[in-house]
Amino acid sequence: MDNHDTLEAFYRRIWEILDRHYCREAMPTEQFSPPDVLDRQMDIAIPAQGIDTDTLLEKLETLLTYTPNTRQPGYMTTLFGGRVDAAYAGKLVTTMANNAMHTYKAAGAQILVEREVLDFMLKVADLPRGEGAMTPGGTASNFIAMKLAREHAVPGAEMHGWDGRRYRAYTSAASHYAIEAAAGNIGLGERNLVSVPVTTNGKMDVQALAERIHADQQAGFIPFYINATVGTSVLGAIDPVAEIASIARRENLWLHLDAAFGGSLLLSHRMRNRLGCAYGDSLSWDAHKMMGIPLTCSVILIKEKGWLDKAFQAPAQGDYLFQTYPEYNPGRNSNQCARTNDALPLWMALQNLGRDGYEARTERQLALARYAAKRITDHTDMVLYTEPETINVCFRSRHLDSETVCRILDETHGIKLSFARLDHHTYLRLVCVNPDMDKAFIDNLTDKIHYIATQESS
Amino acid sequence: MDNHDTLEAFYRRIWEILDRHYCREAMPTEQFSPPDVLDRQMDIAIPAQGIDTDTLLEKLETLLTYTPNTRQPGYMTTLFGGRVDAAYAGKLVTTMANNAMHTYKAAGAQILVEREVLDFMLKVADLPRGEGAMTPGGTASNFIAMKLAREHAVPGAEMHGWDGRRYRAYTSAASHYAIEAAAGNIGLGERNLVSVPVTTNGKMDVQALAERIHADQQAGFIPFYINATVGTSVLGAIDPVAEIASIARRENLWLHLDAAFGGSLLLSHRMRNRLGCAYGDSLSWDAHKMMGIPLTCSVILIKEKGWLDKAFQAPAQGDYLFQTYPEYNPGRNSNQCARTNDALPLWMALQNLGRDGYEARTERQLALARYAAKRITDHTDMVLYTEPETINVCFRSRHLDSETVCRILDETHGIKLSFARLDHHTYLRLVCVNPDMDKAFIDNLTDKIHYIATQESS
Repeated sequence: MDNHDTLEAFYRRIWEILDRHYCREAMPTEQFSPPDVLDRQMDIAIPAQGIDTDTLLEKLETLLTYTPNTRQPGYMTTLFGGRVDAAYAGKLVTTMANNAMHTYKAAGAQILVEREVLDFMLKVADLPRGEGAMTPGGTASNFIAMKLAREHAVPGAEMHGWDGRRYRAYTSAASHYAIEAAAGNIGLGERNLVSVPVTTNGKMDVQALAERIHADQQAGFIPFYINATVGTSVLGAIDPVAEIASIARRENLWLHLDAAFGGSLLLSHRMRNRLGCAYGDSLSWDAHKMMGIPLTCSVILIKEKGWLDKAFQAPAQGDYLFQTYPEYNPGRNSNQCARTNDALPLWMALQNLGRDGYEARTERQLALARYAAKRITDHTDMVLYTEPETINVCFRSRHLDSETVCRILDETHGIKLSFARLDHHTYLRLVCVNPDMDKAFIDNLTDKIHYIATQESS
Repeated sequence: MDNHDTLEAFYRRIWEILDRHYCREAMPTEQFSPPDVLDRQMDIAIPAQGIDTDTLLEKLETLLTYTPNTRQPGYMTTLFGGRVDAAYAGKLVTTMANNAMHTYKAAGAQILVEREVLDFMLKVADLPRGEGAMTPGGTASNFIAMKLAREHAVPGAEMHGWDGRRYRAYTSAASHYAIEAAAGNIGLGERNLVSVPVTTNGKMDVQALAERIHADQQAGFIPFYINATVGTSVLGAIDPVAEIASIARRENLWLHLDAAFGGSLLLSHRMRNRLGCAYGDSLSWDAHKMMGIPLTCSVILIKEKGWLDKAFQAPAQGDYLFQTYPEYNPGRNSNQCARTNDALPLWMALQNLGRDGYEARTERQLALARYAAKRITDHTDMVLYTEPETINVCFRSRHLDSETVCRILDETHGIKLSFARLDHHTYLRLVCVNPDMDKAFIDNLTDKIHYIATQESS
């Protein structure tokens, strides 16, 4: 900012911009432009000499005009959308406070908030003897789970590396690519992660899993880890966790539950017992997906205390950091040294809505998905892939391919919908994740898709 | 928030809180309380029923009262402190916009900002043929570097894992514990990371490095990676990169430069040629450390294009995500799927200050460290460990141990200073990282330490 601005005046102008773009009701999603065109139009080059505040804020507003508005119900391309405002307020506070969450010395009371949130999530997940850690996202949480599984299978692996024997891990073909990434990162190799087929409703085929494990054992591999997905990305399906758990127990394999997406269903009375989360040795849960918390708010929860210590091995170096109140220094069991307080936004939302409020909100999302499925079957020119198990509704038009529908929705209507390949067709994927979504929006969207499909195909 | 609040009114109240705590000049660092005492005092439990806005904001303010204020010059316990306000404004925008940076579809113009910032940093680091990626912090950046090195040494490791042979990596005893963490995470094992001794000025002993590599080769190990530190955590020392590079070249080892702390010195005309950053195959650089950008803003830069593709292996799954404009979808080469735009805060700061402005700022920080060293030698009851090479000044009182000095500064004076073991003494570590720090502050601090030491020891 310029020298003649006061701090308050500068931030007030920023606040006006945020208010206009993100706090009022009627902003459209964005102006659309292909990236190469936009790159030529916008002046975003970094100058040798600083520019004045007016010019900077003008540039910023241009940027925002071409930035999708993730608060709008029309933003449905990711597994998050919309927001709980108390959580966003918490994130604004986190930003301005900018404490590093490795030590009590650096973060003070913020450490206690993180502990409270982790304890709450452990309680909700029915892991009373467990421990947890915040991570920068589901991929990181899933990575840590595989690291714990490695230490379980190869004690001392953190210190000495893999032992030269051939290990195998298992996940379903519908799982998130974070599991593949973890296998590559951890030194197992992506090819040693076996992709187990799914049934047509998107769940892991347990019989196939048992057969693959057996075949691998015969071939001299050592199975050590199974990932079960609680809420797949495309169909929102939940793997048969109890059955998978009995295989894991029999073979002494680590069972990780990737509930990055579906973990929030633990807050639904009706759903939580169907998830089987207490069967897992570890559990990933992203509150930034279904709970309206800003990016990122992800945890790894572990059934038994002590595994984080085993897998992380308190570093020999770093004694200039971890000096006071060792029990209150979460940095020792983290793959981050400096990190923000991602728990505060969730804490604010939980204070504001209460556990009961979140429960009602989750039921509403599930009901909305069922309503959307019904609306789709009412349109005789649309095909529903399968009844939604959670909040994902996959369907297609009989007249127009889903890829074209998505492109037109994006470029002309400011609506971000994704498509996915299922069996031999490409399906539209509608995710009822935004609390501002309502029946009228669903009606409008399905009618719009019907209209686009019939117009374009005629 | 309550139903009777409008969005604007709710956010305005949050804004007033932030203004009071973080935009006015005279706020003290914090009220100090030990964590167990504070835990009993504060009511932070998560309720079943949501609480009203007034109560929530009261709780929030209590939290902030016991949260160290990282903007104050007295906050010196980490390698960041203070702030560039334009960057914080950028982070506030990032928060409210909440775009996921994996695809153009999800993030629009924000993708172009990230590309611009990475291109700028590659240019500054003199890596014109390189590529880069944003990560959630220096530990993650250093991890990716070791992953690239693994793929270089064991082609196909990402797909097939380690090949059963015994590999070794090298770093100095003064390097960040992130390097140890990477060795554990990647499946090499922390014990296969050789800790090379440092000379008394904190730099890697190159002769010792050459000897260790040779001895390991004789013993049947395969050396594959060297980490050189550009700015060590305690002394701010810069390893002799050019000499290390000639060993790395001769033995065909990957040379990574952990410039998480010192990378920002690339913006100093006088320093940049002394760093040797162009010698590295990869470079970590955290803009959230010396550049006043909020947590986290970290990049991994790679000398040659194509390595990120090789090391990440575009996942087979995820086709429901990476659908349009493939060249503008950075998610494929990242260990994060959903992540915030950490580049926007840096872009805002670079627009505001310009490259020249940052250069002046960096020179000022370096000069301040030299001034502090002089002030300390003027106090005959204090011992300077060594002349500062960059912005870290390590010293001790002859009368009182550094640990006690730190405790009194923290609990009584609201000043967060760290101590570190060097040779046979414990030294205070003063980091001139905050742009709001000035000579008067240094004078005051050294006088205060002199006073505490003489009072307590008498």
